[in-house]
Amino acid sequence: MSILKIVSKVNITEDLWNESLDGHSIIPEEFDGITYYRVVKKVGDLKKGTVVTDSGVIYDFPRIARIMHLENGVKLAFNNPFYVEEKVDGYNVRIVKVQDQVFAFTRGSYVCPFSTDRLVDFFDYENFFKENPDLIVCGEIAGPENPYNGESPPYVTEDVSFFAFDIRNKNSDRQIPMRKRYKLFDEYKIPTVTRFGRYTSSDVKDLKKHIQGLNEKGCEGLVFKPTDPSEKTVKYVTEGSCLRDMKVTSSLMIEYQAEFFTNRMLRSIFYILEHDLPLNEEFLKKAGDALLQPLFESVKKVAGGEMITEKFKVRFNKKQNIKKLFEHFHKCKVAASPVRHEKVGKHWHVEFVRKCFPSYEVIQKHWDGHSHFD
Amino acid sequence: MSILKIVSKVNITEDLWNESLDGHSIIPEEFDGITYYRVVKKVGDLKKGTVVTDSGVIYDFPRIARIMHLENGVKLAFNNPFYVEEKVDGYNVRIVKVQDQVFAFTRGSYVCPFSTDRLVDFFDYENFFKENPDLIVCGEIAGPENPYNGESPPYVTEDVSFFAFDIRNKNSDRQIPMRKRYKLFDEYKIPTVTRFGRYTSSDVKDLKKHIQGLNEKGCEGLVFKPTDPSEKTVKYVTEGSCLRDMKVTSSLMIEYQAEFFTNRMLRSIFYILEHDLPLNEEFLKKAGDALLQPLFESVKKVAGGEMITEKFKVRFNKKQNIKKLFEHFHKCKVAASPVRHEKVGKHWHVEFVRKCFPSYEVIQKHWDGHSHFD
Repeated sequence: MSILKIVSKVNITEDLWNESLDGHSIIPEEFDGITYYRVVKKVGDLKKGTVVTDSGVIYDFPRIARIMHLENGVKLAFNNPFYVEEKVDGYNVRIVKVQDQVFAFTRGSYVCPFSTDRLVDFFDYENFFKENPDLIVCGEIAGPENPYNGESPPYVTEDVSFFAFDIRNKNSDRQIPMRKRYKLFDEYKIPTVTRFGRYTSSDVKDLKKHIQGLNEKGCEGLVFKPTDPSEKTVKYVTEGSCLRDMKVTSSLMIEYQAEFFTNRMLRSIFYILEHDLPLNEEFLKKAGDALLQPLFESVKKVAGGEMITEKFKVRFNKKQNIKKLFEHFHKCKVAASPVRHEKVGKHWHVEFVRKCFPSYEVIQKHWDGHSHFD
Repeated sequence: MSILKIVSKVNITEDLWNESLDGHSIIPEEFDGITYYRVVKKVGDLKKGTVVTDSGVIYDFPRIARIMHLENGVKLAFNNPFYVEEKVDGYNVRIVKVQDQVFAFTRGSYVCPFSTDRLVDFFDYENFFKENPDLIVCGEIAGPENPYNGESPPYVTEDVSFFAFDIRNKNSDRQIPMRKRYKLFDEYKIPTVTRFGRYTSSDVKDLKKHIQGLNEKGCEGLVFKPTDPSEKTVKYVTEGSCLRDMKVTSSLMIEYQAEFFTNRMLRSIFYILEHDLPLNEEFLKKAGDALLQPLFESVKKVAGGEMITEKFKVRFNKKQNIKKLFEHFHKCKVAASPVRHEKVGKHWHVEFVRKCFPSYEVIQKHWDGHSHFD
């Protein structure tokens, strides 16, 4: 189907389409011979993150509202039953068939060469999409060997795994009902996030048990999904995930929004208070360490004339996809360079480093004695 | 002299003056029968913070550039000798004669009723302004019993003291030369910040000794003032002052800019690295405590249905000025209410609390279970 016909179904006229291309609100990209269009600024009903292909529109993955108090939050959000799932700390992908190929799109609406390469290790996607060409499988890719995220769930001890949590239709911003979704996951043996089941807001005791178990194990949190479409999905995270977030990012405190850190401090305090954890010396030292130790290491490096870097290891099936990942980084202005790669068993093991120029440059300027107004 | 004649000297035409009043860039205020005009948005050359009176224009007190590395910063900033003074943790006032009265103006360009009431305790201002009616004495009011600031220098153990650091002319944004300034301070017995003397950038060893001494004593930092007017004033703070800043403000983390905290974390790390202090458990615990303990207390209060408040104690000479301070707070939208007052010796001792609504409301909404997008 022609692109103009596709977008006409989501109320984008030819004029608006052309105008959006000219004004760079929509940017064409190419991957493995397939052209796709990234929405980078809102156009009509299409929000940033949406992908337009000649096999249909893949809507952006919606942001999820956060509750800071588990019991009160769930009670306020739900009058009807809801499903509870684990929130997994990885990166979000939308897996979708375009023409006769299957791709994993990132939240930023790029084809991810790494994720797409690894789909074959996650589930029998050929079979799924042969029978369901208009569906989109949404989920989290998580594990210590991923190219983006410094954190991973404790139960993925090497490489990455895929955890599905949503199924959507092309050309629609709605999800398909929970029961049908779970049925498809099971039928096609698609691995999912932990599904805790169906609850009502009077089951707070069980929900607290679940979140406390996740906190003890080092997991991120929970997502609560309505059965009544008029109610909204909400998320809630553990105290431990706040501290881990701070610990893995504070080396680059300068290039993050400062709210990243203050928000997590506040969330951890809310968790401690609701779940009767002590605000003891151990917690305070752990928080101080998470915020300041990695920042100290960064400043020390720059003071010694060293670049600040982040190291990554990832595994690929096809050697030619390694190059595509670095092309992807280049496009996204990520200064990543390969260090080494070797075939180990069935996978190519690739190591690379990311140079963290923004942090480096600010710290260097300060260290060199330049003054500034704050 | 008429206001229009006054402002014509600083290149503000009658049209621009009237336009600025109409557009609320300049706001008229009244205190003790004297009318003055607050510049709240830049008008011509007049910046926010400037005060216009019929006795002349009092320029805004300029922001001072910060260096993050003492040695490199001083070497980069100064080719010529400079004066070194202590940076005192209080609030900035400009003391000036308007008609036949002397007022202390805050950085926000209000007459401060408290500071104005207390001038008589600081120095013989009548004598100074009789002989120097066109000068402005700039300095810091600091001490545990001040109405604004949660911190105070360790050597002011009760009430407040005044520490002058600048003398300026009305109708000019320039300071008078350092030697003349110091001579006037001494001649009129005006108390000043600690003056460490005149140095060059090769005296880094001495400067390090001074800052380390200040850090050990619990003082804020140093200000470096050029003898060559083409060079600029810079400031440098101690590690301890960063931790104290965080400790006294983190109870209201929500209503502060998040950068307030991340900037201080970075500054403390720079200090530690330059001055070879250990990044040990004690420091990390102290930092964690400064950031999270007061925030915990705030959330706990709101969870228990209590308002978040800050308590203040101040001393006044004249009873009628107490009321004026609360009128001033009301004007500045500060929710301060008197708790008690009594005459002790020659002063009225006043206690009041400030209700911290913005923090309270955000925390309460979160605690009650409302969801939000972040």
